[in-house]
Amino acid sequence: MTLNIADRLTQKIVETKAPIVVGLDPVIEKIPSIFKDGGSDGFAGAGKALLSFSKTLIDIVKPLVPAVKPQIAFYEMYGSYGVKAFEDTVAYAKANGLVVIEDGKRNDIGNTALAYAEGHLGQVPLISGKKVPSFDVDFLTVSPFLGPESLQPFFRIAVEQNKGLFVLVKTSNEGSGAIQDVKTSMGHSISEELAHLVHMHAQKSVGKTGYSAIGAVVGATYPEEAKRLRKRMPNSILLVPGYGAQGAGAEQVVPNFNEDGLGAIVNASRSINYAYLGEYDAACTLGQFEAATESAVRLMQKEIYLALKSSCKRMAY
Amino acid sequence: MTLNIADRLTQKIVETKAPIVVGLDPVIEKIPSIFKDGGSDGFAGAGKALLSFSKTLIDIVKPLVPAVKPQIAFYEMYGSYGVKAFEDTVAYAKANGLVVIEDGKRNDIGNTALAYAEGHLGQVPLISGKKVPSFDVDFLTVSPFLGPESLQPFFRIAVEQNKGLFVLVKTSNEGSGAIQDVKTSMGHSISEELAHLVHMHAQKSVGKTGYSAIGAVVGATYPEEAKRLRKRMPNSILLVPGYGAQGAGAEQVVPNFNEDGLGAIVNASRSINYAYLGEYDAACTLGQFEAATESAVRLMQKEIYLALKSSCKRMAY
Repeated sequence: MTLNIADRLTQKIVETKAPIVVGLDPVIEKIPSIFKDGGSDGFAGAGKALLSFSKTLIDIVKPLVPAVKPQIAFYEMYGSYGVKAFEDTVAYAKANGLVVIEDGKRNDIGNTALAYAEGHLGQVPLISGKKVPSFDVDFLTVSPFLGPESLQPFFRIAVEQNKGLFVLVKTSNEGSGAIQDVKTSMGHSISEELAHLVHMHAQKSVGKTGYSAIGAVVGATYPEEAKRLRKRMPNSILLVPGYGAQGAGAEQVVPNFNEDGLGAIVNASRSINYAYLGEYDAACTLGQFEAATESAVRLMQKEIYLALKSSCKRMAY
Repeated sequence: MTLNIADRLTQKIVETKAPIVVGLDPVIEKIPSIFKDGGSDGFAGAGKALLSFSKTLIDIVKPLVPAVKPQIAFYEMYGSYGVKAFEDTVAYAKANGLVVIEDGKRNDIGNTALAYAEGHLGQVPLISGKKVPSFDVDFLTVSPFLGPESLQPFFRIAVEQNKGLFVLVKTSNEGSGAIQDVKTSMGHSISEELAHLVHMHAQKSVGKTGYSAIGAVVGATYPEEAKRLRKRMPNSILLVPGYGAQGAGAEQVVPNFNEDGLGAIVNASRSINYAYLGEYDAACTLGQFEAATESAVRLMQKEIYLALKSSCKRMAY
């Protein structure tokens, strides 16, 4: 039996004892000067700096965590040069054995949704008729605003290509409730209805670890909702934003996990990417950058691991 | 007084008598062979074919309509090569005097939403510190799932840069109601709440034509909702999908307009891009492709213009 991508992610979480994904959020004004050395100016120079920064982050975190989450917005803003840096970042992370979660929050309807699914997770047709992978990430975040119907191409392509999804169910931002907390005529919140949808699809593709590649985004900033949503999606991995720079501590992420300490992966982006700013400034050396970054990841791992150990009844690792 | 981008769009609608935007949805398998002639294979060849097809569509429609709406999904699926074709398509359309509406349905929270807003509508920082435009489209479609707060960077950048937005309010697809029709505790649907939000921002930036660059997507497939939403956003231009291939006829788009026959722009993508398939096949000549496309645009213009003339009490053109 082939492992599905959720099995692979779960195994790597157990191996590293780190249910953690490091977000890659490269912001030109915040990147240390060492990554801008080779850079000419212009979009090509910016793209090179994004890639150089991303590769160094990958080198630092690869022995410590199972996955990275490049946020495509920060690359895409530099157009085709930025997207090239994104593609090279994805390829480098995969070549280094990391699971890659693309944060794109994509969606549309019908054939357009299919184009996103094929482009990011599946294969695209060339003029010859041959179909080849394009972005080829392992997981993609998708937005459900257009309705469950709009997610069908993503569910289909994910299953066909052994890829995964994280559907936005309850996001970590302060105003997330404006739409997500509204109650339907059945008395459930929109988040709960979405969790039900995710679970219906997740159930159909459970791997040997008990987890499915059809997952959900559930923020750490709403622990009560997280507890309820966790129960509704027992087979799904939850991608958990909100830790670190967004304000949630290690105890607050516990409700996103199952009793075995699995089934969730906590994201931190800024608090890792820019950890160096706690001690240094833009003139820091590579060694200083590496030390600050590694130490921030190790601290996060320790905090979350200890919080889980002391809370989960059947901790699996 | 400088014209805002909504004024420019409105003036061009009056000049062309065509409240129409032609969607650019290039799909490799559906593009005639003439656009694949120069193409090597691979992603570079696919990108060239997308651009060649898009430029020809722009050449055909530029005397007939005010705007084009390239759907980035169909370009982005080919990675950086596709995004380059998208950028060149946008530049070509603008150089030919067309208003460009990027259909990207982007959004995220905080700084990430800002990165999308700066990249698509605003300016991005280079290593030198200089800020320059990147995609530089005129309008961008944005998704509100993460809450009104997530739209703030887009509202701000649009106003600052004299650009426009179309916020997804009621989409044209069959399942759009699953989230958009749910009623809040105030008794309004989520679509209605979003319309209120759009109107609050639109009111603040009304141009000399009476329209604001803060608009909304309201599908033609739900005329009753369109009538209500139209009233709630009197100063907004509505981007109207659903005509043509999606099933709505000319009478069904009328409720999206104000009594002056303005304030809406109807999109058609497949029914124009692939009009040639009604008479020809992939082996068609350029002349045949041009004739079929032009005739489809002219027919759509006539149908919608006549439907408006016979329905609008104070038709302005």
